[in-house]
Amino acid sequence: MKKDKGARRIKIAYIGGGSRGWAHTLMNDLAQAPQITGQVALYDIDRPMALLNARWGKRVNQSPQARSQWTYTVPTTLAAALRGADFVAASIQPGPIEMMGSDLNIPREYGILHPVGDTAGPAGLVRALRAAMDYAQIARAVQRHCPEAWVLNFSNPMTACTRTLYKVFPQIKAFGCCHEVFGTQRMFADLVHEYHGLKVERGEVRVNVLGVNHFTWIDRACCRGIDCMKLLARKVAAPGVVRPVPPQESARMGFFENRKQVTYDLFRRYGICPAAGDRHLVEFVPFYLKDEATLNRWGVKLTPYSYRIERYQTAPTGFRKRLRDRKPFEVKASSEEGVKEMLAILGLTSGFRSNVNLPNVGQIEGLPRDAVVETNAYFTADSVKPEFSGRLPAGVEALVSRAVSNQEMIVEAALARDKDLAFQAVLNDPLMTLPTDTAWKMFSRMLRATRAALHGWKV
Amino acid sequence: MKKDKGARRIKIAYIGGGSRGWAHTLMNDLAQAPQITGQVALYDIDRPMALLNARWGKRVNQSPQARSQWTYTVPTTLAAALRGADFVAASIQPGPIEMMGSDLNIPREYGILHPVGDTAGPAGLVRALRAAMDYAQIARAVQRHCPEAWVLNFSNPMTACTRTLYKVFPQIKAFGCCHEVFGTQRMFADLVHEYHGLKVERGEVRVNVLGVNHFTWIDRACCRGIDCMKLLARKVAAPGVVRPVPPQESARMGFFENRKQVTYDLFRRYGICPAAGDRHLVEFVPFYLKDEATLNRWGVKLTPYSYRIERYQTAPTGFRKRLRDRKPFEVKASSEEGVKEMLAILGLTSGFRSNVNLPNVGQIEGLPRDAVVETNAYFTADSVKPEFSGRLPAGVEALVSRAVSNQEMIVEAALARDKDLAFQAVLNDPLMTLPTDTAWKMFSRMLRATRAALHGWKV
Amino acid sequence: MKKDKGARRIKIAYIGGGSRGWAHTLMNDLAQAPQITGQVALYDIDRPMALLNARWGKRVNQSPQARSQWTYTVPTTLAAALRGADFVAASIQPGPIEMMGSDLNIPREYGILHPVGDTAGPAGLVRALRAAMDYAQIARAVQRHCPEAWVLNFSNPMTACTRTLYKVFPQIKAFGCCHEVFGTQRMFADLVHEYHGLKVERGEVRVNVLGVNHFTWIDRACCRGIDCMKLLARKVAAPGVVRPVPPQESARMGFFENRKQVTYDLFRRYGICPAAGDRHLVEFVPFYLKDEATLNRWGVKLTPYSYRIERYQTAPTGFRKRLRDRKPFEVKASSEEGVKEMLAILGLTSGFRSNVNLPNVGQIEGLPRDAVVETNAYFTADSVKPEFSGRLPAGVEALVSRAVSNQEMIVEAALARDKDLAFQAVLNDPLMTLPTDTAWKMFSRMLRATRAALHGWKV
Amino acid sequence: MKKDKGARRIKIAYIGGGSRGWAHTLMNDLAQAPQITGQVALYDIDRPMALLNARWGKRVNQSPQARSQWTYTVPTTLAAALRGADFVAASIQPGPIEMMGSDLNIPREYGILHPVGDTAGPAGLVRALRAAMDYAQIARAVQRHCPEAWVLNFSNPMTACTRTLYKVFPQIKAFGCCHEVFGTQRMFADLVHEYHGLKVERGEVRVNVLGVNHFTWIDRACCRGIDCMKLLARKVAAPGVVRPVPPQESARMGFFENRKQVTYDLFRRYGICPAAGDRHLVEFVPFYLKDEATLNRWGVKLTPYSYRIERYQTAPTGFRKRLRDRKPFEVKASSEEGVKEMLAILGLTSGFRSNVNLPNVGQIEGLPRDAVVETNAYFTADSVKPEFSGRLPAGVEALVSRAVSNQEMIVEAALARDKDLAFQAVLNDPLMTLPTDTAWKMFSRMLRATRAALHGWKV
Repeated sequence: MKKDKGARRIKIAYIGGGSRGWAHTLMNDLAQAPQITGQVALYDIDRPMALLNARWGKRVNQSPQARSQWTYTVPTTLAAALRGADFVAASIQPGPIEMMGSDLNIPREYGILHPVGDTAGPAGLVRALRAAMDYAQIARAVQRHCPEAWVLNFSNPMTACTRTLYKVFPQIKAFGCCHEVFGTQRMFADLVHEYHGLKVERGEVRVNVLGVNHFTWIDRACCRGIDCMKLLARKVAAPGVVRPVPPQESARMGFFENRKQVTYDLFRRYGICPAAGDRHLVEFVPFYLKDEATLNRWGVKLTPYSYRIERYQTAPTGFRKRLRDRKPFEVKASSEEGVKEMLAILGLTSGFRSNVNLPNVGQIEGLPRDAVVETNAYFTADSVKPEFSGRLPAGVEALVSRAVSNQEMIVEAALARDKDLAFQAVLNDPLMTLPTDTAWKMFSRMLRATRAALHGWKV
Repeated sequence: MKKDKGARRIKIAYIGGGSRGWAHTLMNDLAQAPQITGQVALYDIDRPMALLNARWGKRVNQSPQARSQWTYTVPTTLAAALRGADFVAASIQPGPIEMMGSDLNIPREYGILHPVGDTAGPAGLVRALRAAMDYAQIARAVQRHCPEAWVLNFSNPMTACTRTLYKVFPQIKAFGCCHEVFGTQRMFADLVHEYHGLKVERGEVRVNVLGVNHFTWIDRACCRGIDCMKLLARKVAAPGVVRPVPPQESARMGFFENRKQVTYDLFRRYGICPAAGDRHLVEFVPFYLKDEATLNRWGVKLTPYSYRIERYQTAPTGFRKRLRDRKPFEVKASSEEGVKEMLAILGLTSGFRSNVNLPNVGQIEGLPRDAVVETNAYFTADSVKPEFSGRLPAGVEALVSRAVSNQEMIVEAALARDKDLAFQAVLNDPLMTLPTDTAWKMFSRMLRATRAALHGWKV
Repeated sequence: MKKDKGARRIKIAYIGGGSRGWAHTLMNDLAQAPQITGQVALYDIDRPMALLNARWGKRVNQSPQARSQWTYTVPTTLAAALRGADFVAASIQPGPIEMMGSDLNIPREYGILHPVGDTAGPAGLVRALRAAMDYAQIARAVQRHCPEAWVLNFSNPMTACTRTLYKVFPQIKAFGCCHEVFGTQRMFADLVHEYHGLKVERGEVRVNVLGVNHFTWIDRACCRGIDCMKLLARKVAAPGVVRPVPPQESARMGFFENRKQVTYDLFRRYGICPAAGDRHLVEFVPFYLKDEATLNRWGVKLTPYSYRIERYQTAPTGFRKRLRDRKPFEVKASSEEGVKEMLAILGLTSGFRSNVNLPNVGQIEGLPRDAVVETNAYFTADSVKPEFSGRLPAGVEALVSRAVSNQEMIVEAALARDKDLAFQAVLNDPLMTLPTDTAWKMFSRMLRATRAALHGWKV
Repeated sequence: MKKDKGARRIKIAYIGGGSRGWAHTLMNDLAQAPQITGQVALYDIDRPMALLNARWGKRVNQSPQARSQWTYTVPTTLAAALRGADFVAASIQPGPIEMMGSDLNIPREYGILHPVGDTAGPAGLVRALRAAMDYAQIARAVQRHCPEAWVLNFSNPMTACTRTLYKVFPQIKAFGCCHEVFGTQRMFADLVHEYHGLKVERGEVRVNVLGVNHFTWIDRACCRGIDCMKLLARKVAAPGVVRPVPPQESARMGFFENRKQVTYDLFRRYGICPAAGDRHLVEFVPFYLKDEATLNRWGVKLTPYSYRIERYQTAPTGFRKRLRDRKPFEVKASSEEGVKEMLAILGLTSGFRSNVNLPNVGQIEGLPRDAVVETNAYFTADSVKPEFSGRLPAGVEALVSRAVSNQEMIVEAALARDKDLAFQAVLNDPLMTLPTDTAWKMFSRMLRATRAALHGWKV
């Protein structure tokens, strides 16, 4: 087609190509990138969903705003998807969604609550075991079929998935992408508006990012010469801002509403701003999850498994309905950065800076080398280089180190199929205060419930 | 006197010279070292107790077994005690003993139990704040009056005290001595007897030591060619060895009895042997201290404050009684190593190896540089050099790292009089699972109760 | 003035404000930056030259192409220059130019030749001693008068000057700028033209930079998807490219002509491309400077002191002549990046990437922490962060390490006024093969000749 | 035999069992160790010499002073020698002795002189290539046949040999033994005698050792409370001690006489005492080897190849003569420590401390991890642990780092058969100042001359 003339032809392999969220955003963003064109190979073990997404992609091509046309294929093997790929995007569910049921419900019997359960806590660790098994396979396939391709990971637990890729294939060019920090930039942008009356984009808030995914921290934030950290201090000091959320207010809250009470509290205690939603933050510290009432008091709600499974199961119906519609798809700017990152890596833009997950080569001092951490990085031709981001204050470093230790142990345990080591990670989790014998029983039950995804394990 | 002819004349400054335990052992051990003689300057803020100990020392001199005579002086200032000293021994109570009351009892109101309370947990941390204040003063005095002297620390919290010495006077020649590991060597010696029928001395069990004081670990133990770790594995696997201690048995137990159930359990979970008494170990992990019944089930009892204060207050009466006795003191071999260490440092023996607390220069991989850690070290002329001891397994390293982080934070907080940082250490303690606002209240009460020993603090 | 409306007002302190080269370029570049305006304070111990430059600045303002107007002041004290400064630029001559005479000529008597003599070799080291004395003073003045200002260093020896700034005032925001790498980018751009027929800008050649100033190396170079390292390999393998330069050709060469024979040879030997002019490179290795004939055979000439002093002394005459001219100054794009860097630091552009000299926080693996090294860095709002650039191959790392050791020793020696340590640096220099007693004599003579600039030294 | 009753039975595999020097000393020392008995398997590619040594061993057994009897076998394969070994001793000639001819003589044509030529310089590097080939084979054989055995290396180049063992079989238990430091201890003992009138054993001089083999340094030396470093400073400052050695004196000197002029000079320049013979020291720095006259002036002589080959060839005749003699062998204390080290490793003594060559795990700060370095270490049951020995002063660290870089490069080059990398090591050698093209020719000639020992190389 005319509009693609001069565009670079590339191939993107999409693992988890039947996925509900990010796949659609990618299609939307690719349609707005006139510098590139080519093929997106949607691979999924749930092939019907991948075929559905391919149809979706065709509808995106037909959008009046589309400036680039893409071919959406649905290969039957991972190898076929990867062969010749310039980029690999991965966003998968580790184990069928139903396994989140046991991840969440068994610990709950022992008094351990997970507002999210996909990153930390016993639930996040067991999910990581499954994910690492899948990602080991992906790493080996990339090594065989497209060792020079850049791999963008979008699955959780982000750190365990990305760590597995590097552990299995150390020369891989991979990084993990997460938009959780964007929300914190938006919080700062709102403060700039509140205190200075300026409307600014979140991208204008320049932040220094340090930590691990979903437990990142910001120690400097600046926007148009305004020190945003001071605005946050002012906000937190204002009367009525930090407050117990009363039960009646909590009862009315949606699962994803963010009262920022945990963010404010951690900022007050540690003097540095956590950069993830409160529902994630509470899973990394032992302070807010004594029981559901305590959690609610801090403005966070448990997202029940019933809600998750329902949303998951009804999504395809909605997609099918939209595909049957005659109404053309509207393509518009998204807040995701995957395509911008690809363009910079292809050398087609002058460079790009964002927060990503990469093995630590020193970008965060005081955390172990090779562990996957999240900081800003700079994207340029065939190069994603993390920025030197300094060191977390001692109090926060202690908390983050704990998450890093668990990342290292759980990935190692998954690859070695070592239940004892995996259990040591569970024992080290901040949500864990059970006696070791009780904990062992709980953990054993969790593994057995998810054993179908733990090939080669004795559980 | 004749018997000291040819002996090297030295001066030992004893800070806490009125102390009840180790001072008497030192006198006993010095009397058996014919290679040295000289002066012991007993300095204590409780001068009457120091004078009592000086009388005790004279009686030791008169013992028929004494092979070396010492002059015991009671200087009125620290400066006078230190001037000209070759060695400084420090064993002090940080703050009056009564402060252990608030250290233990306030957390107890919040459900936080401390079997010991002098090393870790909120009690250990608050004690560390006081101790660091005292040790900062000692470090400055050593720097001024005897910068070349070797300082032996015997006070708890061992790591915080020793760390403070180095932080305030980095060129200090100091190390911390603790006999807790000896008990584990004895456990191994017993196993050698049980399984091989051999009677061996604890010193014949060669161990590799890694960790921080009271939370040390042994990954290799060898005695007459026998691998003692295998004996421990055999022991733990034997039926009935690991078991819940029934309430009636627990009720009859003395405070210091060690059922080793925690030792066995940690060995089973982590594959490496913890090397401290169970009552210390439980304070470093969140598994065994849910409530008193749980603790008792693992064979550990709470040592109540009432017992401590009673023992403390009655001890001098016993001493005085023995001094009034005509019965000569009997001098005999003790299990302490302080005098052996001094002899090696003086170059009077061929060298000596034992576990001590020193700043980490790499003797333990994976733990931060400069933090005080416990490993074997080699003593020779004017030199105490730690042995390269390797790395803890990941699961244990995570637990020990947490203690190390807290050591660093609490000493820094003490020197900077920074309550926020001290509180961050409390939040990071394994015994802490309170919400941050409740924790802050508890911590504030604890500080206020001990404020008399926190000069210059705003609490 | 109208054209400055909306521009940010800043103050730049220029130390060495009477300098002949970079000051004029800065004026030229500032005139083309409509986003900023303000004051440039030209401070120089040679005040007449600074006054001359202020007149020059006024003429630049009058240029028809000028889009920004600047006030050029000539303060009489360093303090006055620095107070209120947002940026400090430093380009000075360490010691009067005449001292280059002894720097170059005394070693020459001993058979030690310096084609440049401002960076390495005994001449560079003695110059570094003087420079470090000056830069220690600058660091202290910045700390007192404008601790938040960003300092751009342009003086040689670049690494010693920048290292001194950080050693004296560790919180300083300073970096060193050098355009030597640009020449190598141009070489690659020429190769792209030669082999692919494409005309490209040097900035389009994306390079990874590793090393120390004037001894930097490039291990990856990419331009429009072309691997430039392969082009260089092709070039070097072509017949007649690497060749001895015959005496008659050498005789006709200008001092600054670059035959690249040394570049080619080092690339061939080490498989990685040195990124500085040959005249600099030969001073970092012992291979090419046996005698003048050998040097000439490799296409490099000695720049004699007579030439330098003559050029230095005649420059002002030329300036005065141009100032007397009626002809308006033409303002046009320069190849320097200082103003681009300032704009990025002010947050007025979206960011900027270039090679600069910064303390090593890990951007080069295998070189010691804190030593000043040269790599790419990323400039954004109030932030200059080095990029992680990997590690030099072992053979080159050995050569660069030697330069780094000398940087560390000579700066330490200067600040401690320690002649023995400075001499140890001389002994470690690659140009040094004299017996130690002869070397000591030579070094002592060099120091005595330059003693007027070595305040507080006993030489 | 009666006298071996209760002795531990062990097997020692001796690689290079036909060797002339250390094998005889080992036999002598074993005969004096009543705690052990067993078999020594003498393996050598020169089997007749091994058989000769076996006869020698039998004669040692018959010595009236022998307190332990040993069986000396001469297995025909390396595998047979190693199988069942508790210890492996290796002292081999890398390549036939004749190859020292080209090692020494080719560089000499280019003006590069080697007083020893077995450790550093182009000769040492080419020897290292051969040695690494041999030691790679030994490492693999140990891994296969006796992975738990302790390996004592005695061959030069010590560092390259030991490094190869660890590089090929990282879990090997190996260390390198060298008595060069003993000579420096004796120098200190002599100074104690000279200045204090005390006769002391060299072992009583407690030293801290830092460096690489044959280029070790001592920064602390203490004997009976006397600071020996001060005695050395006094000695060096005395008139006439440091002096040029006149030609007539030099002409009369034996090859192995040590005038210590280089030791004194380096001590004076660097403030720390080198701990190897002057003939070794001069090969690690570029100061003393300009030409033979310069070398002689510093009191060192070239040991010509003719002398070496003559001594090598005549030695067996002497051995045979002694074997034919009726005169019983006299067994007496030697100065070697190999048997003492074995006894400590067997757990039969209370421990032993000496300087040995081990991979750097931090025992020397500032030198790269894993490189083989020489420091004190502590020997105990199945354990040889290096002592933390601190850091070399910057000036010396620069010199030693260079040797370490070359160790790393030459071993890597040998294992990868990479001539370019090997050449980079040659270019980095302190004795090398030739232009790169001339150096390449010299190096190529050296490799070709020794190609029979470079299996699999293209030279």
